[in-house]
Amino acid sequence: MTRPPPRGFPEAEHRARLALAQAALAAEGLEALLLTTEPEIRWFSGFLTRFWESPTRPWFLVVPAQGAPVAVAPSIGAELMGRTWLRDVRSWSSPDYADDGVSLLAATLAELTPAAAEIGVPMGRETLLRMPLGDWQALGERIGRRRFRDDRGLMRALRMVKSEAEIEKIAAACAVAGRAFARAPGLLSPGRPLSDVFRRFQILCLEEGADQVLYLAGGAAPGGYGDVISPADDRPLAAGDVAMLDAGLSREGYFADFDRNWSLGPPAPEVAEAHARLVEAVDVAAPLARPGATPADLFHAMRAVLGGGAPDVGRLGHGLGMQLTEPPSLIAADLTPLTAGMVLTLEPSLPLGPGRMMVHEEVIVVRENGPQFLSPRIGPEIPVL
Amino acid sequence: MTRPPPRGFPEAEHRARLALAQAALAAEGLEALLLTTEPEIRWFSGFLTRFWESPTRPWFLVVPAQGAPVAVAPSIGAELMGRTWLRDVRSWSSPDYADDGVSLLAATLAELTPAAAEIGVPMGRETLLRMPLGDWQALGERIGRRRFRDDRGLMRALRMVKSEAEIEKIAAACAVAGRAFARAPGLLSPGRPLSDVFRRFQILCLEEGADQVLYLAGGAAPGGYGDVISPADDRPLAAGDVAMLDAGLSREGYFADFDRNWSLGPPAPEVAEAHARLVEAVDVAAPLARPGATPADLFHAMRAVLGGGAPDVGRLGHGLGMQLTEPPSLIAADLTPLTAGMVLTLEPSLPLGPGRMMVHEEVIVVRENGPQFLSPRIGPEIPVL
Repeated sequence: MTRPPPRGFPEAEHRARLALAQAALAAEGLEALLLTTEPEIRWFSGFLTRFWESPTRPWFLVVPAQGAPVAVAPSIGAELMGRTWLRDVRSWSSPDYADDGVSLLAATLAELTPAAAEIGVPMGRETLLRMPLGDWQALGERIGRRRFRDDRGLMRALRMVKSEAEIEKIAAACAVAGRAFARAPGLLSPGRPLSDVFRRFQILCLEEGADQVLYLAGGAAPGGYGDVISPADDRPLAAGDVAMLDAGLSREGYFADFDRNWSLGPPAPEVAEAHARLVEAVDVAAPLARPGATPADLFHAMRAVLGGGAPDVGRLGHGLGMQLTEPPSLIAADLTPLTAGMVLTLEPSLPLGPGRMMVHEEVIVVRENGPQFLSPRIGPEIPVL
Repeated sequence: MTRPPPRGFPEAEHRARLALAQAALAAEGLEALLLTTEPEIRWFSGFLTRFWESPTRPWFLVVPAQGAPVAVAPSIGAELMGRTWLRDVRSWSSPDYADDGVSLLAATLAELTPAAAEIGVPMGRETLLRMPLGDWQALGERIGRRRFRDDRGLMRALRMVKSEAEIEKIAAACAVAGRAFARAPGLLSPGRPLSDVFRRFQILCLEEGADQVLYLAGGAAPGGYGDVISPADDRPLAAGDVAMLDAGLSREGYFADFDRNWSLGPPAPEVAEAHARLVEAVDVAAPLARPGATPADLFHAMRAVLGGGAPDVGRLGHGLGMQLTEPPSLIAADLTPLTAGMVLTLEPSLPLGPGRMMVHEEVIVVRENGPQFLSPRIGPEIPVL
């Protein structure tokens, strides 16, 4: 196994992120940001734990216009949060059915912001508020003349551009996935149930260095699979199947997300042709991923190769980082100007007949001079097993 | 590997859940429920996919006071949702930056409910709304004289009591974890970094039949670990360590969640004593888990054994099912009447000195005549390696 980068980030990385955020807050006329989700809180703090899998307790981070962020966290997490670079961690014994952090958070907001402050909360696309709606309403009644409003994509814009340290972590995750995919043909034997393939492929990912395998989808069926989000069933693989595995594994809290296809036995001509076309779509779109271009440009370039009638999966790729999928989306409506440091998946798909399709996915970083592939780019010929 | 129960649930199971829900809706005076999260939607539909790991797209389920639930789902999931027992699946091409399902959902609500309907939404503890807040506000403006209000714990109460078919799935997951824990001592060799132990233990879980290992926490340190939510670090295990692994694995979409402790070499007397006391707390509390008792009763029984000064992790156990942690909470304030079919973890913890603690966890089902252990109950002596 190649030597992974050191764990975590230096404090300077988090201070640089804070400086970017505070410049954006000033430009937006916001006195603070209120954050409630795992990736938002981790982006500022470095707080990494699988404990978010428990939905019970809310967690809060207040990023003021000046000064360091303040964490308002359940007592069970105070010790671990105290090991991040944040010095101000306030906690309460949660769950508390009478007041699950609401008054502590309200007092913190009152202390950190002026009396009539506008406080930004991510409310736009691909966001959610990770706290009960009832508590959100109660909080709104506790902040006096302060007002919550949409951050107008401020947090999205910040997280969309990755630092070199973040790119290094995504690259390490993609390298793990690449090694696992290289070993996957050993699993794809006729007679083995797809559910067993899924289990064993996750083991390969862990053996190759994944911390967790949070996402795995795929399919195997004669001449193409039915969709791209199904869990595994117990059908045994058979000669003539087209098999696909799409891995979303993470390492150090950053994801890899790409897939690979295989043909069990010689592929039907339309399968071979579809695979070549999918790879061509990536090859045509990737060089367009430069600063100033848009996700829509990449979308249209891929559509031109794929032709009409593509299956409606909604988009042809997406951002990647602390989450399996992040903004932007490769759709006609996404006119976000690409900038250096954005990490994107290119994920073209093609229909092959009723209930049959194929999808291919690679990962790139937008660089000044063109794309850098983080996934080990493949050739047009579908691997035959 | 013992033979697992068949995948999924029969349609009759989902129809029985719907009948329970519609009786509760009638009692609450609600014309419908609007649901947005994975476990809520799966409880009614059986829709199982790892695709929820992508936060991009919202998903909706409308459960009317009469008639079958209606799914309003992104097109990428329409095919898979159509394979559930639901016959009415409406979809749109998502992501759509102008209207990401909001008008389709508003039209569906208008069709399924009267003009001045009250529509329940889970807004209380341990809930969240999985859609952007901006879209939630837009939806509120699109439903005419209809009104959303808190479901007052209706959904929580429904999901808290598991059917026999659900208990079978949780039992299967717990059996997987039990087999993995039985093999874990082979991993706990002095010199092996904890991060490597975590990776290999996840492999054991997969080998023993887990579909995924979504949660793993633990620690290893001389005489007790620092907290119970940390990710693994690279410190090598050493003689004198107390090691703990807390596994949250799932099979068929249902979780196991319990832990095990080991001593590397002979334990210090206070470690041996703490382990015995933790097991005693479980042994004392478990028989109280009968219909009519409350989580508070179990909490107080465990506290009496543990004594004062317990570390503030907020509670001493919780519900378990489609999520790693579910209501109720074993705290003094939880007076939910226990009923047969509730699945609970008993999770006492003890402080051992500054920055050192131990925690133990088992899983039980509340039955008419007392508890049934789903985890392989252990004895008071800490296993010594």
